[in-house]
Amino acid sequence: MPLLLQKFMVEEHVKNALKEDIGFGDITTDFLFSDKDKITAKINTRQDGILCGIDVAEIVFKILNSDIKFKKMFNDGDRIKKGDTLAVVEGNARAILTGERTALNYMQRLSAIATETRKYQDAICGYKARITDTRKNTPGFRMFEKYAVFVGGARIHRFNLSDCVMIKDNHIKYAGSIINAVNIIRKNLSHTHKIEVECDTIEQVDEAIKAGADIIMLDNMTCEQMKESVRIIENRALIEASGNVTIETIADIAKTGVDVISSSAIVAKVKTLDIALDM
Amino acid sequence: MPLLLQKFMVEEHVKNALKEDIGFGDITTDFLFSDKDKITAKINTRQDGILCGIDVAEIVFKILNSDIKFKKMFNDGDRIKKGDTLAVVEGNARAILTGERTALNYMQRLSAIATETRKYQDAICGYKARITDTRKNTPGFRMFEKYAVFVGGARIHRFNLSDCVMIKDNHIKYAGSIINAVNIIRKNLSHTHKIEVECDTIEQVDEAIKAGADIIMLDNMTCEQMKESVRIIENRALIEASGNVTIETIADIAKTGVDVISSSAIVAKVKTLDIALDM
Amino acid sequence: MPLLLQKFMVEEHVKNALKEDIGFGDITTDFLFSDKDKITAKINTRQDGILCGIDVAEIVFKILNSDIKFKKMFNDGDRIKKGDTLAVVEGNARAILTGERTALNYMQRLSAIATETRKYQDAICGYKARITDTRKNTPGFRMFEKYAVFVGGARIHRFNLSDCVMIKDNHIKYAGSIINAVNIIRKNLSHTHKIEVECDTIEQVDEAIKAGADIIMLDNMTCEQMKESVRIIENRALIEASGNVTIETIADIAKTGVDVISSSAIVAKVKTLDIALDM
Amino acid sequence: MPLLLQKFMVEEHVKNALKEDIGFGDITTDFLFSDKDKITAKINTRQDGILCGIDVAEIVFKILNSDIKFKKMFNDGDRIKKGDTLAVVEGNARAILTGERTALNYMQRLSAIATETRKYQDAICGYKARITDTRKNTPGFRMFEKYAVFVGGARIHRFNLSDCVMIKDNHIKYAGSIINAVNIIRKNLSHTHKIEVECDTIEQVDEAIKAGADIIMLDNMTCEQMKESVRIIENRALIEASGNVTIETIADIAKTGVDVISSSAIVAKVKTLDIALDM
Amino acid sequence: MPLLLQKFMVEEHVKNALKEDIGFGDITTDFLFSDKDKITAKINTRQDGILCGIDVAEIVFKILNSDIKFKKMFNDGDRIKKGDTLAVVEGNARAILTGERTALNYMQRLSAIATETRKYQDAICGYKARITDTRKNTPGFRMFEKYAVFVGGARIHRFNLSDCVMIKDNHIKYAGSIINAVNIIRKNLSHTHKIEVECDTIEQVDEAIKAGADIIMLDNMTCEQMKESVRIIENRALIEASGNVTIETIADIAKTGVDVISSSAIVAKVKTLDIALDM
Amino acid sequence: MPLLLQKFMVEEHVKNALKEDIGFGDITTDFLFSDKDKITAKINTRQDGILCGIDVAEIVFKILNSDIKFKKMFNDGDRIKKGDTLAVVEGNARAILTGERTALNYMQRLSAIATETRKYQDAICGYKARITDTRKNTPGFRMFEKYAVFVGGARIHRFNLSDCVMIKDNHIKYAGSIINAVNIIRKNLSHTHKIEVECDTIEQVDEAIKAGADIIMLDNMTCEQMKESVRIIENRALIEASGNVTIETIADIAKTGVDVISSSAIVAKVKTLDIALDM
Repeated sequence: MPLLLQKFMVEEHVKNALKEDIGFGDITTDFLFSDKDKITAKINTRQDGILCGIDVAEIVFKILNSDIKFKKMFNDGDRIKKGDTLAVVEGNARAILTGERTALNYMQRLSAIATETRKYQDAICGYKARITDTRKNTPGFRMFEKYAVFVGGARIHRFNLSDCVMIKDNHIKYAGSIINAVNIIRKNLSHTHKIEVECDTIEQVDEAIKAGADIIMLDNMTCEQMKESVRIIENRALIEASGNVTIETIADIAKTGVDVISSSAIVAKVKTLDIALDM
Repeated sequence: MPLLLQKFMVEEHVKNALKEDIGFGDITTDFLFSDKDKITAKINTRQDGILCGIDVAEIVFKILNSDIKFKKMFNDGDRIKKGDTLAVVEGNARAILTGERTALNYMQRLSAIATETRKYQDAICGYKARITDTRKNTPGFRMFEKYAVFVGGARIHRFNLSDCVMIKDNHIKYAGSIINAVNIIRKNLSHTHKIEVECDTIEQVDEAIKAGADIIMLDNMTCEQMKESVRIIENRALIEASGNVTIETIADIAKTGVDVISSSAIVAKVKTLDIALDM
Repeated sequence: MPLLLQKFMVEEHVKNALKEDIGFGDITTDFLFSDKDKITAKINTRQDGILCGIDVAEIVFKILNSDIKFKKMFNDGDRIKKGDTLAVVEGNARAILTGERTALNYMQRLSAIATETRKYQDAICGYKARITDTRKNTPGFRMFEKYAVFVGGARIHRFNLSDCVMIKDNHIKYAGSIINAVNIIRKNLSHTHKIEVECDTIEQVDEAIKAGADIIMLDNMTCEQMKESVRIIENRALIEASGNVTIETIADIAKTGVDVISSSAIVAKVKTLDIALDM
Repeated sequence: MPLLLQKFMVEEHVKNALKEDIGFGDITTDFLFSDKDKITAKINTRQDGILCGIDVAEIVFKILNSDIKFKKMFNDGDRIKKGDTLAVVEGNARAILTGERTALNYMQRLSAIATETRKYQDAICGYKARITDTRKNTPGFRMFEKYAVFVGGARIHRFNLSDCVMIKDNHIKYAGSIINAVNIIRKNLSHTHKIEVECDTIEQVDEAIKAGADIIMLDNMTCEQMKESVRIIENRALIEASGNVTIETIADIAKTGVDVISSSAIVAKVKTLDIALDM
Repeated sequence: MPLLLQKFMVEEHVKNALKEDIGFGDITTDFLFSDKDKITAKINTRQDGILCGIDVAEIVFKILNSDIKFKKMFNDGDRIKKGDTLAVVEGNARAILTGERTALNYMQRLSAIATETRKYQDAICGYKARITDTRKNTPGFRMFEKYAVFVGGARIHRFNLSDCVMIKDNHIKYAGSIINAVNIIRKNLSHTHKIEVECDTIEQVDEAIKAGADIIMLDNMTCEQMKESVRIIENRALIEASGNVTIETIADIAKTGVDVISSSAIVAKVKTLDIALDM
Repeated sequence: MPLLLQKFMVEEHVKNALKEDIGFGDITTDFLFSDKDKITAKINTRQDGILCGIDVAEIVFKILNSDIKFKKMFNDGDRIKKGDTLAVVEGNARAILTGERTALNYMQRLSAIATETRKYQDAICGYKARITDTRKNTPGFRMFEKYAVFVGGARIHRFNLSDCVMIKDNHIKYAGSIINAVNIIRKNLSHTHKIEVECDTIEQVDEAIKAGADIIMLDNMTCEQMKESVRIIENRALIEASGNVTIETIADIAKTGVDVISSSAIVAKVKTLDIALDM
């Protein structure tokens, strides 16, 4: 398995997806084919992009029939071109036809995310900034979406609410000030966790630096404000730009000198990549 | 609960989503707020669209704290306008802040699907045709995506592989002919299930009618071919148009007289609707 | 695996059954045998019937010990005679003795259902009618009971509440008339699903035909009424006979010309077939 | 809840059963009724018997809608007569109609087991012997079947392989003798567990007594042999009669003086009791 | 697998433990090593003791990578000495480093329990008494703790609340007397289950014997009282000593002639054994 | 619920623990008490300590019977003294007696960990150092053990392998040097995660500082070495002391000026606190 995904966790997810799609049986395939019929099929892409999910597809077919042969032509992260054969699947006909849709559902969505992410990352090539994702995921599917983002070349943002502190406006309002919020949390926080503070203004950036924040998120700032913030922060904290990140604006944002640019668009606004199974 | 979704099934899905997002605890909120702190928050939309998932959001907050008050201003299926307050959430501050992202993740994606679906359906208003979805779903999230499609005004296509036969080219090749495929399957098939046959050509449409198919899918045909097929079929089977369905082409397709137009775009190619939680 | 059952779903069910039967360990076998002891055992039938569940039995033993050799002498659907050896099981003694009861529990119940179903189906041999089951299943065991019914030669009725509409008297009362009920439902229904209407009287049959029902269930009618209904319906809908179906009455019902005869007896009223494991 | 069943365990089982029966939604009921419609229904029995499962039925409806009112007229273990109303169910129409089949599936099977058990127990009224069940259960349904057997008036035999030792012929063959088998096991066995030995002959009974067995099972013996065994054992062990137990033979077996008569028939060979839900 | 533990149940437990420890991925190991890197590691003990859990450790690594070679040098129950290599693990570097902590967490705790148990059992060597455990387990970990106790040389006490009756002071108070409590329970109890009565005084011992208890627990008695109880009971019931059992007092307790000495200390008060994985 | 624990996650864990302990039913309590019997019980401590798990205990009883009244006298984190009544439990007798052991199993273990942790933390009162735990947890029980450590006054170390990088000797060996290891990982690492490096020597400390490690773990160093390390690091990284941490040595370690002292002893080497339920 590629990094970050564990096979036994993928298998559990795939089994649930197959139960969802199979119900009481694939009545078309099961009534037509015998258990001895064998076929060979190709997974082809009908669009250019970055491949992601090929190992998940293999697991789909192998769960349905452990004798299936799955020959990968490309690996996750590879650039693929319209017409490329990504893998050849051989063996039990029922398993291949019953698993087709589920295997493609994983691949199409994950490859789309990886492809979009790569496009954003390429747009800021040459700058130190890296694209990163958010927690705007499809419920129950985060493990895969975070993985696709990584395959696409992004750094993954926090996985969930327990691996990094993120102080937002509501927290600040409640605590009275950024400094108060940071202090209250730091009293209890593990030494292994960072504190990120969301700032809307230069004044907040200033306060966050004084509070000792590890990461400062510049939320919905103009490029001018961002440049000013970078200047003020002076390497005392990592800087994350957030808000209004599009493929058009991202290079300008990178130019400001921020370290990381977070965008939900690379996950939440992508269209599935057209990948198909052909005989 | 609205139709089709059962509360206990939604609860199970939401609990998994919350485990995914909470991990070992929301270290920001838990370290800052006490269990006695209460807040009031509003769920507002920042985009126009069709609302979907409001009851799921309520379940998210209630699982975290059963005393949360959740006052709905709109129901699933309602048209919402940028700036509308969709619901007011009151109670335990930790539950509201910890549940925020998960609740929005459901609403943003489901509302986006409902909105896109409605747009397609509106585009064929006046024709008898209805838009329908496909099985191209996010693995593990189909129950919700099918529901959103319904809320958006579409008919739901088959739920999974066991509730309708769908004979595709691979099946036809194997059986030798459409008639053979239909006959073999019908021998075993429940009287409660329909048979749909995918046809690429007028000849296949003809053969499918002879085979007694209940539904004929016209796959990637031109409008001319579709009109011709409608004429030939003469109400002896339901007609589903598939392939190249976009918001631009859909009215022309509807004009051909088909009964149902299926599109994966209403689910697989949507961008999340911008909905937020504000204090 | 035979059609309709997926191995990974059977494995999950079997693991739960084994946990139920093993608890904290088979204290008889584990304290007596060492993990190196090997035995050979035969699964023999002590009654005539139709075999069902032999592959499930194999899975039971293989879950307990993957090195077990399981040699099938018969397949599901085969006629078996008192004294026949159905399979030979060889290998780890603990696995065989610990799994014995669970393996037989599946086989005895499934074979009984297949046997009873075949008896009913044989009784209407020569008529076009086919026997079908109902949703009167043991909770949590439907997947297997539906499969056994199919192995026994029946068509499977709807799998669950989401794969076919069934309008019963309560629905009709609420909607005011069969026509109303059908119309309301059809407005929302997928084009891939059928509508079945339960009719107690000839008048209702007439109304159901007008409403465009796909299937008409003749509920508790006399053979005379059924014949009359068949005449009226005139192939405009499939006809299901229901109620008072016994091995004595079924041929007379088939004679009326109905398409399908549904009976809960083939599942709900069978006695397990006597199958045993002998050394 | 009645004894032995824990509500949270029943709820888990019921949720699985409902998922099995509902799939993606009750398309008949959901498309016809609104979520505000209310109905009143009665659960009536169409056969005499012993009631079992009434609390499980209540849980079915309450899982679907927690506001359902469920008024019990009888309790588990009560004798019920054809025509009796067992409970009145009031509230959300969808919940009642969607839950109907699942609720009845539990009640019909459990009441049938309780009824059959009571018949056997009544047939040996006046003797000290008590009827008991076996481990021949429907996989995944044992908790309920054991409970029904208890409600019917039987003693429950061991729950699973870990709560009592049962030395059968295969174990004896392997160990060389009953005495060896008992000794090997007793060396490791908890002081809280009993040892039962299956005996086919008077000689084996004799040996089992010498080995210090707590329970002696007389397997397929004639009444003469059983009487002789009872005489020999002389209260030094509990005596269980097994094999060929029918409603006709059971009184004669009880007459021999055995303590317990085990029968798989009270679970494995019953026909569901006819219970229905009427408006 | 060793006796009592079933591999498929261990696998399920281990998978949950791995999910708990891995979260979204081992970011240290996955970012540093490639999936092709291989290493060899040794599991060494840094303390003397009794080994327990070696097969569980193997399962941990094999779940992460099925090609891992795991060569056991010792078996569960073996005496191990500081410095001993218990197993050699070879293969995929990521799997070995990611699984290390979980594998050791099982082994360290189970070996500690086995070691402590053996110490207690050795202290009463020569007496007929055997050490036994209690139900004071870590929630969710009982299967393993009971197994370790057995490996350490103890008899396992009841597994849970359903495999032996244990009448305590609260039950006696409610029933009015020991005799009442025993009689009420025996009326319903399976013939396969024993009744144990907890006695604080000689009078209660006397009453328990009259009630026909199978096991009498002497709770917090002095050695004098225990001796007296043993004399009174005269082999009419098994005798369990409980309370104030320490490594210092246990021999004196054994000397009184009791059959079994139960102690929660062998599970609840142990310190993990120091076992490590070295390259 | 107290911070970090989510009620719905605790409920899921408790249900599994109850299934483990109840099996097929509490045959003592269920056969003796009726479902209408009510009792009042007190949870008392027989030892001094820090309370932890009182809310978990409440959940145990409420799962068994939602009408149970549970009145807390103390909260998690409170100092409790031998003889203190911690809570009064009132209601259904069966629920209280059946839940007793499970409720106490949580409380006894969690309170013991909190108590031990507090003892360690108190020993370094006045120094800036804080005690922290490790990942040496009971598999499947980490959520609770981490919580108890927090309640006891410690900072929690990383929750699992995905929330902080920890570079150990094996990683360093593979990468060639600390600097290489840090660089390779940082290339992929999220900006929200820290890097901790385990150092055995002053030279390694030096290298780790140069590599830009966020946290430096001083592994098994003497106090002299630690002092030297603190001097060298000069606030450029957080410092964690590890190895040979006992209640005797901890103050000396704190005196060296380290920030955090990690110890597995506060979890892995504690003896359960004696808490009981009395009528």
